[in-house]
Amino acid sequence: MPDESLSPPELLGDIPPEQFRSYLHRVADWIADYRETIEQRRISPRVRPGEIAARCSTEAPDEPAPLNEILAELDTVVMPGIVHWGHPAFLGYFGSTSNGPALLGEMVAAALNVSAMTWQTSPAATELENVVLGWIRQMVGLSESFTGVVYDTASIATLHALAAARERCGTAVRERGVAGHDVPTHRVYASDQAHSSIDKAMIVLGLGEMNVTRVPSDEAFRMDVAALRAAMAADLRSGICPMAVVATVGTTSTTSVDPVTEIAAVCTEFGAWLHVDAAYGGALGLLNEGRWAMAGVQLADSVVVNPHKWMFVPLDFSVLYTRHPELLRGVFSLTHAYLRGDAARGTADSAASYADYMDYGIQLGRRFRALKAWMVFRAFGRDGLAARIRQHCRLAQQWAQWVDADPRFVRVAPVPMAVVCFRHVPAGLDDAACDRLNEAIVNAVNASGCAYLTHTRVRGRVVMRIGIGNILTTVQHLERVWALVQSETDRMATGCEMST
Amino acid sequence: MPDESLSPPELLGDIPPEQFRSYLHRVADWIADYRETIEQRRISPRVRPGEIAARCSTEAPDEPAPLNEILAELDTVVMPGIVHWGHPAFLGYFGSTSNGPALLGEMVAAALNVSAMTWQTSPAATELENVVLGWIRQMVGLSESFTGVVYDTASIATLHALAAARERCGTAVRERGVAGHDVPTHRVYASDQAHSSIDKAMIVLGLGEMNVTRVPSDEAFRMDVAALRAAMAADLRSGICPMAVVATVGTTSTTSVDPVTEIAAVCTEFGAWLHVDAAYGGALGLLNEGRWAMAGVQLADSVVVNPHKWMFVPLDFSVLYTRHPELLRGVFSLTHAYLRGDAARGTADSAASYADYMDYGIQLGRRFRALKAWMVFRAFGRDGLAARIRQHCRLAQQWAQWVDADPRFVRVAPVPMAVVCFRHVPAGLDDAACDRLNEAIVNAVNASGCAYLTHTRVRGRVVMRIGIGNILTTVQHLERVWALVQSETDRMATGCEMST
Repeated sequence: MPDESLSPPELLGDIPPEQFRSYLHRVADWIADYRETIEQRRISPRVRPGEIAARCSTEAPDEPAPLNEILAELDTVVMPGIVHWGHPAFLGYFGSTSNGPALLGEMVAAALNVSAMTWQTSPAATELENVVLGWIRQMVGLSESFTGVVYDTASIATLHALAAARERCGTAVRERGVAGHDVPTHRVYASDQAHSSIDKAMIVLGLGEMNVTRVPSDEAFRMDVAALRAAMAADLRSGICPMAVVATVGTTSTTSVDPVTEIAAVCTEFGAWLHVDAAYGGALGLLNEGRWAMAGVQLADSVVVNPHKWMFVPLDFSVLYTRHPELLRGVFSLTHAYLRGDAARGTADSAASYADYMDYGIQLGRRFRALKAWMVFRAFGRDGLAARIRQHCRLAQQWAQWVDADPRFVRVAPVPMAVVCFRHVPAGLDDAACDRLNEAIVNAVNASGCAYLTHTRVRGRVVMRIGIGNILTTVQHLERVWALVQSETDRMATGCEMST
Repeated sequence: MPDESLSPPELLGDIPPEQFRSYLHRVADWIADYRETIEQRRISPRVRPGEIAARCSTEAPDEPAPLNEILAELDTVVMPGIVHWGHPAFLGYFGSTSNGPALLGEMVAAALNVSAMTWQTSPAATELENVVLGWIRQMVGLSESFTGVVYDTASIATLHALAAARERCGTAVRERGVAGHDVPTHRVYASDQAHSSIDKAMIVLGLGEMNVTRVPSDEAFRMDVAALRAAMAADLRSGICPMAVVATVGTTSTTSVDPVTEIAAVCTEFGAWLHVDAAYGGALGLLNEGRWAMAGVQLADSVVVNPHKWMFVPLDFSVLYTRHPELLRGVFSLTHAYLRGDAARGTADSAASYADYMDYGIQLGRRFRALKAWMVFRAFGRDGLAARIRQHCRLAQQWAQWVDADPRFVRVAPVPMAVVCFRHVPAGLDDAACDRLNEAIVNAVNASGCAYLTHTRVRGRVVMRIGIGNILTTVQHLERVWALVQSETDRMATGCEMST
């Protein structure tokens, strides 16, 4: 007989319900306070590597600690090392906005802690995923011919898309792999502005990093379609399979938009899969005046859109749409293998009329991600999402005007969305010195704790970059950041030695 | 000038702070109520496919909805379709336990919404990840020669491990891929009990599903090492590269434990990578009396442990340890490629002394997963984790005794951990009919709403399976479920026609 008294009761079960309720309220207030005071915080902490870890024991704790003490350590140990991505003057990367409705959704999803492997393991999780996939599809302007699935990140979504493309080449890759039999080299084409997740996907898929052909981009950082066609034709003549083209709607550095319609025509010509990386730019499809960005995406075989980038859903939430869901399922469903052999996992019959999303991807354990998206989309509505996205575009235009009006800076790329790249180019400095100077300005601005920019490289040169994606960011915030950029630039220019 | 008044203010910004605070408290109470009343709920809902979706609009909502209304719909639309994985009589799959401390951690992580791409994008996220990786390593009994990284799921962790193994074969696979040049067939070996994630990984990696050799298992479902050696030797003679062996510590169906030490010796003999799937069983290493399960794992090249399975961290949280972190980084770091070309993303310099975890995997966006693990490990302590795991093992032994004492059932596998597989085998039924009967019993038990089992296949036959992993589950819960299994079995036996 199991004798539960063998373990002291305080070492079993959960924390007592009344205590839990009280801590839930305490953390609720902690979160409310955090959000209300976020603007008063230094965005980027002043910590040296190892400083946070040094406050923790390197030994796993033996004894239970009171929650009281742990929550105190949250403030003393953890918070001093946090970069406040939610601060309205955090303009790094693409803003991943947390917000009220989203946070409530995250809380509930964590409490439910279901796994959306199959319809049966939680019907509401699968069906809500289906519902929000429909909403996002409509909002970004894709037709019903696209079927979606939610993954964690765009990198994983693109990996799945290219896995499907690889399978379509028709050489039974799923079964036999690409090595050891007569499979041609598969090549993928993307602009020199496209995201590194394409390289990672090609590495993982066993197709090789060298088989990502980087096609030159034009003066607006858009893929040169003539160069694409020439590269594909040359490869085809050499017996290489032009497997897929990745077109980008909203590149990471400059948010440039590839000419998707023309690229689609080239894909048709060569029988190549067209994957569109609209991870960031898909959101622009919510605006009537932004629909141009999604022109031609209708013709794609697959499209990735990241609501955690510019649709106000927190990390992580990435959507892949494809016109060939049966192919994706054909690569990833193991139902047949499973039925052939011994059981490799506990299973449940699925409802034939609903997709079991585990059959469409690598991951088996799948969080109930749809809930937070459902909360955000219901709470803000399409109109609210669009208004916020439009506002971010306007704010970026404002920043671009400031840059354009200031002789100390050049704007290095058009601003079709909510990202601005600019560079301080004083006379008499060579490119490398200018690179160091721009990096130093970014570091100085970030060191102030009042703003956070990133630097990136455009045409090989270091530039400053802001990305506006936070629903709390107003023009007043940007005015202050702009003043800071100006003053740090002047300070650097007046003789300070730059650190490299 | 951006004119913020162009968008009505209610369509910009977040919900008002005071309103948000009040909703945080409302959801805090909702969660507390949910956890307190979870036992009174039907575990598995009575919904037909499409029923939940039918309560949602298929059109994306245009207008913002009041949070009041949305939270009401949480109860009326979402909850009726939830399987309550946290119910103490939910014994399906492996229990993924949510609990008080974990939930508070999830809430805070969602509020912070940082991305742990690099040290610099949030030092505390990277350093806390490092700290809890150390704790888990110690707790499961791995030496300091292992370096860890947190992924979402074991499927992703195993994919990364096998990607590193593939690279070690030394044919510049990262750069050139496995197709189109002189790369031998790479083969992976795993027992016929091993998880399907190995097949998925081999499909993704371009090595082919057919190159997973399923090695027979013995009467206790452990890999037959002689058969493994013979298979590898035969392959080597045929010019096939025996790339890796996946040994399992705690298989999904029966929690059997492969003889890792002997398998390691074979791996050494053939120069093969040893990956240990201890996703479930690694937790047994927390018990002195459970250390046997991890014997030999020290010799592995990589090990996956899932704290979201049996270490009380909610979905998703999976850890890969490897003795070759430089190899993993060699496959996935794109630093060089990035510096070579145009910027493909905004970047920040990383602190040289700390790992940038994005360089160790596919995903770039990485949630602050370490926080919930830190909360759980601090709140329960190693002693508390061990006591709960020990208790689950005891409860499983109790169930096994009930099965063994009841002539209507046979136990089909040993019970080394907290999973029991058993089968109702009435006289006079052929195997297929018996399969249908066992499936029908599981379905009937689950249809009651009072318990949730899974059925699985062992040696090709359908059996019933319970997995105990919830910290709320007591012997009283099991007594009730066992009584239900018995009564449903009798009811089926007395002439009810089974549905197939």
